[in-house]
Amino acid sequence: MSKTKEITDLFGIKYPIIQAGMVWVGGADLAAASSNAGILGLIGAGSMQTDILRQHLQKVKTKTDKPVGVNIPLLYKHCEAQIEVCLKEGVTIFFISAGSPKKYTSYLQDKGCVVIHVTSTPELAKKCELAGVDGIVAEGFEAGGHNGRDEITTMCLIPQVVDAVSIPVIAAGGISDGRGMMSALALGASGAQIGTRFVTSIESSAHENFKHAIVNAGPSDTMLSMKKLEPVRLLKNEFFKTVHEAEAHGASVEELREILGKGLAKQGMFDGDVTGGELEIGQVSGMIQSVDTVADIVDELIETYNSTLKSLVSL
Amino acid sequence: MSKTKEITDLFGIKYPIIQAGMVWVGGADLAAASSNAGILGLIGAGSMQTDILRQHLQKVKTKTDKPVGVNIPLLYKHCEAQIEVCLKEGVTIFFISAGSPKKYTSYLQDKGCVVIHVTSTPELAKKCELAGVDGIVAEGFEAGGHNGRDEITTMCLIPQVVDAVSIPVIAAGGISDGRGMMSALALGASGAQIGTRFVTSIESSAHENFKHAIVNAGPSDTMLSMKKLEPVRLLKNEFFKTVHEAEAHGASVEELREILGKGLAKQGMFDGDVTGGELEIGQVSGMIQSVDTVADIVDELIETYNSTLKSLVSL
Repeated sequence: MSKTKEITDLFGIKYPIIQAGMVWVGGADLAAASSNAGILGLIGAGSMQTDILRQHLQKVKTKTDKPVGVNIPLLYKHCEAQIEVCLKEGVTIFFISAGSPKKYTSYLQDKGCVVIHVTSTPELAKKCELAGVDGIVAEGFEAGGHNGRDEITTMCLIPQVVDAVSIPVIAAGGISDGRGMMSALALGASGAQIGTRFVTSIESSAHENFKHAIVNAGPSDTMLSMKKLEPVRLLKNEFFKTVHEAEAHGASVEELREILGKGLAKQGMFDGDVTGGELEIGQVSGMIQSVDTVADIVDELIETYNSTLKSLVSL
Repeated sequence: MSKTKEITDLFGIKYPIIQAGMVWVGGADLAAASSNAGILGLIGAGSMQTDILRQHLQKVKTKTDKPVGVNIPLLYKHCEAQIEVCLKEGVTIFFISAGSPKKYTSYLQDKGCVVIHVTSTPELAKKCELAGVDGIVAEGFEAGGHNGRDEITTMCLIPQVVDAVSIPVIAAGGISDGRGMMSALALGASGAQIGTRFVTSIESSAHENFKHAIVNAGPSDTMLSMKKLEPVRLLKNEFFKTVHEAEAHGASVEELREILGKGLAKQGMFDGDVTGGELEIGQVSGMIQSVDTVADIVDELIETYNSTLKSLVSL
């Protein structure tokens, strides 16, 4: 049996691909389009008030009858309320990030849910397996948004996570096309989670200015920042420059917290202030040349994957 | 034609793999063992005085009749003398790093040599192609030793370099086994350059203490450091800690230069002071479990590559 079947069977999807659940970007429209395209759509709950999340969960059911999951970062105080809303609305697939895998895994599994936990090290992956999760997203240094402190790249991370656990591993970070997809599977992953490429889909809630900033970005235009606080990969703009200069001078946690302020991610990603706002995005931005529908992105990815596989020969 | 044939034909080797030419590690023994194993062995000239380099070039000819190349970083003042010694000793394969591709490419090609240039961005790769080089090593953030400032990982770098140029691209950074090898080819590379795994070969000149420190390293035990000076990936030890703490406090270029001192790489990598010495190594250290012969490393890599390829199916 191909390893990818572990993922397609687990979620009841056609292709072993997850559309990452992203703050300010991943609402009902993106998740429904993704699930309708044969991959797993995720709603990104992190940036949603509980009532907004409820609206997205109700809306998504009107747009697709395929499985849709929710990503819940345990960073925020309303995460427990979010989980309860999800359960009430019939969500059965949870991607949990930024917190302990022990906290909700058995609680959710007892209610018949599938629980996946996001990790950035093989050590945490082992802890997740011990906590009984159904699978792992292993996210490399190149991924957008919040990121691990150990700076382990997807290339180095995936084989070590795959060797460390016996549950399915979904690779994330640096994957945007069929070549990246095949690379992830070659490294031993059973599937891939893709974020940045779907930010630049027509159906994402990202502001048009943000989408175009990503399309215009070059290979060197993101950088992992805020390492003393919570490491986050940012698109280079004026906000990034302020952070970067402060860090070069040895800024303290308090100074960084002051620069970060409140609401700058919404201001940048959702409201479109691509100069002063915080733009969380993956390094793979440099590879993205256009804004397309999710269906076209998925079709092209699968086509490239299959042609890449055919082009490789034994050594 | 498979893309890997571009590399095997260019160098006259069996497998599209290059043993990286590394300071304090890559002498005649390692290069000969590599070339005898069917890959391209490189002598790492960076750390060698010109007469020492001559001795290695003469020795390697007694140990293999297969092609052997030399890596010459243009960082050091004796690089021109090194090139002349190489030409005198009949070297026809040059891997040039850390300098302008315009400087020696046509000079060497006029003498019948193959010239490869090492890059860490697609932009520099384009400049290399314009300068007429025969191929490119594109080296990602996870690679050991000196590294680019833009922190582009192998996963993001390779497809963008492959799309930017029409000459062969050799992937480097994060590759140590058949899974990494296949990942590199999936991303569009024609071959792979492998460093860290060969540092932990029996034939490398690395001190036993250094080899064992790599074998004992975990996935999070290296970090890109000295970013204000010349970014270099280091194994975490007391020397690293000094650098890291200085950087966290916003150390200037001058302060970093003072910490770096002179001779600490030799002290660590060659003389075996794994506490106070500078240990340049790749992030893939966490994956390496043993010290083996080059022949065994290559055989296992090819076997894993072939079995990985067989395990993947169309989507």
